[in-house]
Amino acid sequence: MQTLKLELGARSYPIYIGGGLLSRSDLLASHIGGKQVMVVSNVTVAPLYLDQTLAALKEFECYTLVLPDGEQYKTLDTLNLIFDALLQKRCDRHVTLIALGGGVIGDLTGFAAATYQRGVPYIQIPTTLLAQVDSSVGGKTGVNHPLGKNMIGAFYQPRCVIADTDTLRTLPERELGAGLAEIIKYGLIRDRAFFDWLEANLDKLLARDAPTLAYAIERSCRNKAEVVAEDERESGVRALLNFGHTFGHAIETGLGYGAWLHGEAVAAGMSLAADLSHRLGWITSADLQRIVRLIARARLPVAAPAVLSVERFMELMTVDKKVQAGKLRLVLLKSIGEAVLTGDFAADKLIETLRQSGSNIPAHA
Amino acid sequence: MQTLKLELGARSYPIYIGGGLLSRSDLLASHIGGKQVMVVSNVTVAPLYLDQTLAALKEFECYTLVLPDGEQYKTLDTLNLIFDALLQKRCDRHVTLIALGGGVIGDLTGFAAATYQRGVPYIQIPTTLLAQVDSSVGGKTGVNHPLGKNMIGAFYQPRCVIADTDTLRTLPERELGAGLAEIIKYGLIRDRAFFDWLEANLDKLLARDAPTLAYAIERSCRNKAEVVAEDERESGVRALLNFGHTFGHAIETGLGYGAWLHGEAVAAGMSLAADLSHRLGWITSADLQRIVRLIARARLPVAAPAVLSVERFMELMTVDKKVQAGKLRLVLLKSIGEAVLTGDFAADKLIETLRQSGSNIPAHA
Repeated sequence: MQTLKLELGARSYPIYIGGGLLSRSDLLASHIGGKQVMVVSNVTVAPLYLDQTLAALKEFECYTLVLPDGEQYKTLDTLNLIFDALLQKRCDRHVTLIALGGGVIGDLTGFAAATYQRGVPYIQIPTTLLAQVDSSVGGKTGVNHPLGKNMIGAFYQPRCVIADTDTLRTLPERELGAGLAEIIKYGLIRDRAFFDWLEANLDKLLARDAPTLAYAIERSCRNKAEVVAEDERESGVRALLNFGHTFGHAIETGLGYGAWLHGEAVAAGMSLAADLSHRLGWITSADLQRIVRLIARARLPVAAPAVLSVERFMELMTVDKKVQAGKLRLVLLKSIGEAVLTGDFAADKLIETLRQSGSNIPAHA
Repeated sequence: MQTLKLELGARSYPIYIGGGLLSRSDLLASHIGGKQVMVVSNVTVAPLYLDQTLAALKEFECYTLVLPDGEQYKTLDTLNLIFDALLQKRCDRHVTLIALGGGVIGDLTGFAAATYQRGVPYIQIPTTLLAQVDSSVGGKTGVNHPLGKNMIGAFYQPRCVIADTDTLRTLPERELGAGLAEIIKYGLIRDRAFFDWLEANLDKLLARDAPTLAYAIERSCRNKAEVVAEDERESGVRALLNFGHTFGHAIETGLGYGAWLHGEAVAAGMSLAADLSHRLGWITSADLQRIVRLIARARLPVAAPAVLSVERFMELMTVDKKVQAGKLRLVLLKSIGEAVLTGDFAADKLIETLRQSGSNIPAHA
């Protein structure tokens, strides 16, 4: 087991990464203060891992809530189901919530914890690659609104993150790819050596080689923890973690939540952001090709869905959280391993990128 | 104008109290960082004070949202109306929300600010006595759940509080009384001299004598600011501000939100808490009579509504946020001016208090 620490003063917490962690009742118990626990999971993950989790929680007064699975359920209505369950079970302000599942379960449960009785503790047990490398770490919680992704939420840190890499064995292929998108992101925005390593090791990751996956998770979490420690509430450098996400969120909102996985939309978004960075003369054609090739090798989309018009795409992007005084700002690349947040680009270049999307680069590998 | 300061380090903010403040565009502007502003009000307050507020905001890109009036609208559904409006107007992360109204508008708007795009700034402009002396100060925000009052929310501080005492001229009688309940509370829990002053000055307050009201507001806010500065997130002394509230919330939830005003339910709750304190031998019969008499003079209820059975009342109280490990804790009085949070009372004494409610004390003045 590897233990990383996210340094946030009094709100610091450990990230445990390794096999067999779900059965480690000592890990869980050391982060639970009260007597009551509610495990929130979904219909896909619960049959696989709920019993094992509950077995590790025997000493507590334990409740469970199993939600439907999918981004389309990351809503205020589903959030209210968590409140209903907590109140029906008379859970008090000392209850600990446990998120057992992927990014949607983590975001929903974390937001419920942030707001139930004005804040109760929670623990992240991410069971997807994407949640293990990204969404479970850093305290971003929330739900979607029909008009925009993640528009409602809170910064609220968990007591710990327990990433049991054994859970990746049952992960569907598409979900594996979605996680790889966020892993590639870290290489692109701030860790060029990691990008090189990913080019060399992608096949092993796709084959789910356990030590290779564990290394990629650890290095991703290390990158994320460094950024969040520096800028918890995204007043600066943390925005760079949204590389590809403004494009990606437009795709998710435009197609309807759940049509593409979040990681798939981010993959297409990173390809578009790289394309725009190249059109602005910031990265070379060779670097653009390296980026698109790696994303495509991970079996991820590298172009926007044809069904979204350029006009609709632009409209969707203008509700992004990074918009300031009406000006769209994007995370773009200065090179592989160096990203910047900027509003300093010609709008016609962005439109070119959207218009050409899917024509000069292959839609899939 | 009086200016108090709530000392919370980087989150400190001023509370302005006085006449004519709604027109002070300088006050507002000095606490607004961006260009966009959304004023949230209700159908009762907007016709009276919205134009005046907007006139003071001429230099900003200003949107308004007028909600229905009443505690029964303090829900997740109404909260979502605020998110809808913010997204439809493409308000970004630098928008400032302004709550123009009573406690419900303040709690809803503050919670929307806490969670829109994971947090935007907001300003409280309380227009009821209750909001001016209590709910607008201290950063408690949230909504009700059918199973319990204020069960969903966040601690989230405003940029400033602007209490324009001129707005009290249009306040309905019942709303004036509701505010007096929270004013009397400060005397009971921590400011005996203020309680004495209230006994001497209640008639002037009921007659809306402006300097007397202004003094009561300032002294109440000073009490509240001291407590919140000491214990922002209610891990200790702040719980004492909930004197009468566990009983009161049970009344509000049990009768249906909006049937009694919050302050009316708190008034009955304070009478019940004082009665229990007397049954436990903590306060004298004479002190109990002083307390009940002052509350009744303020034209407030001093007993539980007869329609709630003792069993139902007990059940409603057990979802209170102060419940810990299944144990009900109440704020009770050691004397006039000294309250304690305690679970150390015999349940049969509490049941006696509920059973005798309305029999040994007059239901109204």
